[in-house]
Amino acid sequence: MIAVGTELLLGFVVNTDTAYLGKVLAGAGIGCYRQVTVGDNPARLEEAIQAALGRADLVITCGGLGPTVDDVTLETISRATGRRLILNRPILRGIEARFKPLGIRMPGSNRRQALLPEGAVPFPNKVGTAPGFMLSFRGRRPRNPLQRSERSRPKNEISRRFAARDDSFSSKILVALPGPPVELMPMVERDLIPRLRRLSGGTALSSRTLKLTGATESEVDAKVRRLLAMKGAATVGIYAHPGQVDLRITASGKSEREVRGRIAAVEKKARARVGRLIFGADDETLEGIVGQLLAKNRKKLAVAESCTGGGVAERITRVPGSSKYFLGGVVAYSNPLKEKLLSVSGRTLRRHGAVSAQTARAMAEGVRGLTGADFGLSVTGIAGPAGGTKTKPVGLVYVALAGPRRTQVRRFLFSGDRATVRVKASQAALDLLRLHLPGARSR
Amino acid sequence: MIAVGTELLLGFVVNTDTAYLGKVLAGAGIGCYRQVTVGDNPARLEEAIQAALGRADLVITCGGLGPTVDDVTLETISRATGRRLILNRPILRGIEARFKPLGIRMPGSNRRQALLPEGAVPFPNKVGTAPGFMLSFRGRRPRNPLQRSERSRPKNEISRRFAARDDSFSSKILVALPGPPVELMPMVERDLIPRLRRLSGGTALSSRTLKLTGATESEVDAKVRRLLAMKGAATVGIYAHPGQVDLRITASGKSEREVRGRIAAVEKKARARVGRLIFGADDETLEGIVGQLLAKNRKKLAVAESCTGGGVAERITRVPGSSKYFLGGVVAYSNPLKEKLLSVSGRTLRRHGAVSAQTARAMAEGVRGLTGADFGLSVTGIAGPAGGTKTKPVGLVYVALAGPRRTQVRRFLFSGDRATVRVKASQAALDLLRLHLPGARSR
Repeated sequence: MIAVGTELLLGFVVNTDTAYLGKVLAGAGIGCYRQVTVGDNPARLEEAIQAALGRADLVITCGGLGPTVDDVTLETISRATGRRLILNRPILRGIEARFKPLGIRMPGSNRRQALLPEGAVPFPNKVGTAPGFMLSFRGRRPRNPLQRSERSRPKNEISRRFAARDDSFSSKILVALPGPPVELMPMVERDLIPRLRRLSGGTALSSRTLKLTGATESEVDAKVRRLLAMKGAATVGIYAHPGQVDLRITASGKSEREVRGRIAAVEKKARARVGRLIFGADDETLEGIVGQLLAKNRKKLAVAESCTGGGVAERITRVPGSSKYFLGGVVAYSNPLKEKLLSVSGRTLRRHGAVSAQTARAMAEGVRGLTGADFGLSVTGIAGPAGGTKTKPVGLVYVALAGPRRTQVRRFLFSGDRATVRVKASQAALDLLRLHLPGARSR
Repeated sequence: MIAVGTELLLGFVVNTDTAYLGKVLAGAGIGCYRQVTVGDNPARLEEAIQAALGRADLVITCGGLGPTVDDVTLETISRATGRRLILNRPILRGIEARFKPLGIRMPGSNRRQALLPEGAVPFPNKVGTAPGFMLSFRGRRPRNPLQRSERSRPKNEISRRFAARDDSFSSKILVALPGPPVELMPMVERDLIPRLRRLSGGTALSSRTLKLTGATESEVDAKVRRLLAMKGAATVGIYAHPGQVDLRITASGKSEREVRGRIAAVEKKARARVGRLIFGADDETLEGIVGQLLAKNRKKLAVAESCTGGGVAERITRVPGSSKYFLGGVVAYSNPLKEKLLSVSGRTLRRHGAVSAQTARAMAEGVRGLTGADFGLSVTGIAGPAGGTKTKPVGLVYVALAGPRRTQVRRFLFSGDRATVRVKASQAALDLLRLHLPGARSR
């Protein structure tokens, strides 16, 4: 993989593209042996492309396909591979069509983005204007001695597999993708991976990620230690994020069916140990799962937030169609708003404070009454860095869920900076609701 | 820079070390031309180290210094450079001392971490056990033809500078750092940067990022094309994010003062062309700037959100201390809540729809009245993917700002997926407020 961009070398942007690609390529049975980052410099990029084509069977560039003079990837690939650039009319019409509803004429610089190297298979861009593409080289040999010397190394397994199965892959494939993750990711899933799968055939390798919340990494680790120590055709890895722990099951086998069976067997063992903590798998999100459960149970939700400042509502509404079950809510960042909108009594606020079980309860019940929702969910806490005291330190968070019959309140003491405490608090609030909704544990 | 770790290639960990190093090295006047990531594989790491030593004056490895068999960096550096490993007694005592308070005997595998290549300057590790180190090569020449061919390229500016000033740097420097950012970062600041500054002397290099919103990348590009085309001691790069365009000015010179002057001169030209679009610089955020302006003008804010679902409030409350100027707000995701809480009239909703200039105006005025804030800021729109019509397509967003004297409404048609439209909408809302607050344009 070659990441292109001076902003990456200067540390101005952290490169997440190659990590993402490494993950999905591994899932498709393709190992990545080297990543290189170069700046927006045609000479160094050309050298990197030629060295990579000399060394690997599949080379993927990320970035540098934009409309500005800084974007040098397209021209450099053309020069490095000897494939001239040709205007692709369907791509041009697609780019023009993107500008029409905006009521502006397409700038001339965007026309360049409809150029593709001769013989390239275009990958349409549904988010931005720069298309990606795939170029195949049949029996092409690297040109310079530098590459020949590296070429003499033994071919790796992937290479041998591809070479045996498919002639078009037995030589080389070069793929160019746009840099912004929102453009690159759908292109990889829709266009790149299916094509690579078709070309590779044979051995299957797959993985499934179980997503957990409500316990720390060490707590989960202690409960599934035996699974984490497995070796062989199925393995389990553990990865921690703020308020979430992922268990990644990876298996290989002769067929997809065999692989699926191996993963299912490990998943069953994991669920027997930590099933209550597992809210979803793979691309599922906690807010998506909670939304599905609300929709299935035909319940409406409203939220009342203090320390998360709208973060719980923002997460719930990331889900397309959330208006079916989400009415809205109140961000009561000041005490007067807690009193006025959520009917938290002045006495409760004075006696117990804004960060207390009593206030969390009153906020949840208040927003439920205000909106007529089936469930009122509230969060109040001290996100920091200031505002903590000895009895109420930074990280202290209360979440409450008011339902038709009763109100539940939970207390947490989270570690981390302001952003981390806020993420953990919204995670805890959504998980309280998940565990209350029928159907959550049978998933 | 060479990052070492199979977990990086597999995408289990996102590499932030090289981004961090790129930033601090640029600040010390050292440009990074290439980053490479390889797995925990001695052969490929050795090849990468030799190629890098052939190509650059300074090579930094990150990772692979731990105590396990997976950690191959130390042995590989020894082999690649021909420097044998010698036990460093002070380092060994330091590692032993770290285990004492834990009440456990040092595992034998940790003794390996006290080995350093002959002639290495150790960088003590105050967080973990693996020390870093620096190796200098006086007049050393690369050994294999691969490197010689690359060596014939013209030396870069940094290389020439170092060569002229300091004999020990005129050849090569190899630095090995541990991978975990909490161990690497203090080592870089305490040991690496001061040493490199001493070796390089003189020349400084610095950069400043101007952050713009309210125009697309192509529009900004068209306005500052002359600046983007500059070559020499000061250059300008352009980088696009959803709802934001960054202009990065980089300059070099004989002193920090000279560099600052060059950056200021370019910034002045940029401000003359796109000053109104510039909301801040470097680490500043739009929500942070808006917060500063509200605090300075002693004004209170409340928000009413539909399509952003709490995202505007969430951004405002990311800023520590935002409770000084932010009262809170309403997420009115359903029409009944728009009527009940924000006093949007049923007639307005029926005649013009929830996504209309009239509803945006009523929401902003409604939340201002409800909360007693000086400013009411509202957003309503169609984030997609569903819900669009021919007259009201996905991406249509209205933002409104109600103040003491009047209410302003703006209409936008944003491109992108649901998440992108929501980010652009919150950006547009915050920017409407910024431009209205006294002091915004004089920054």
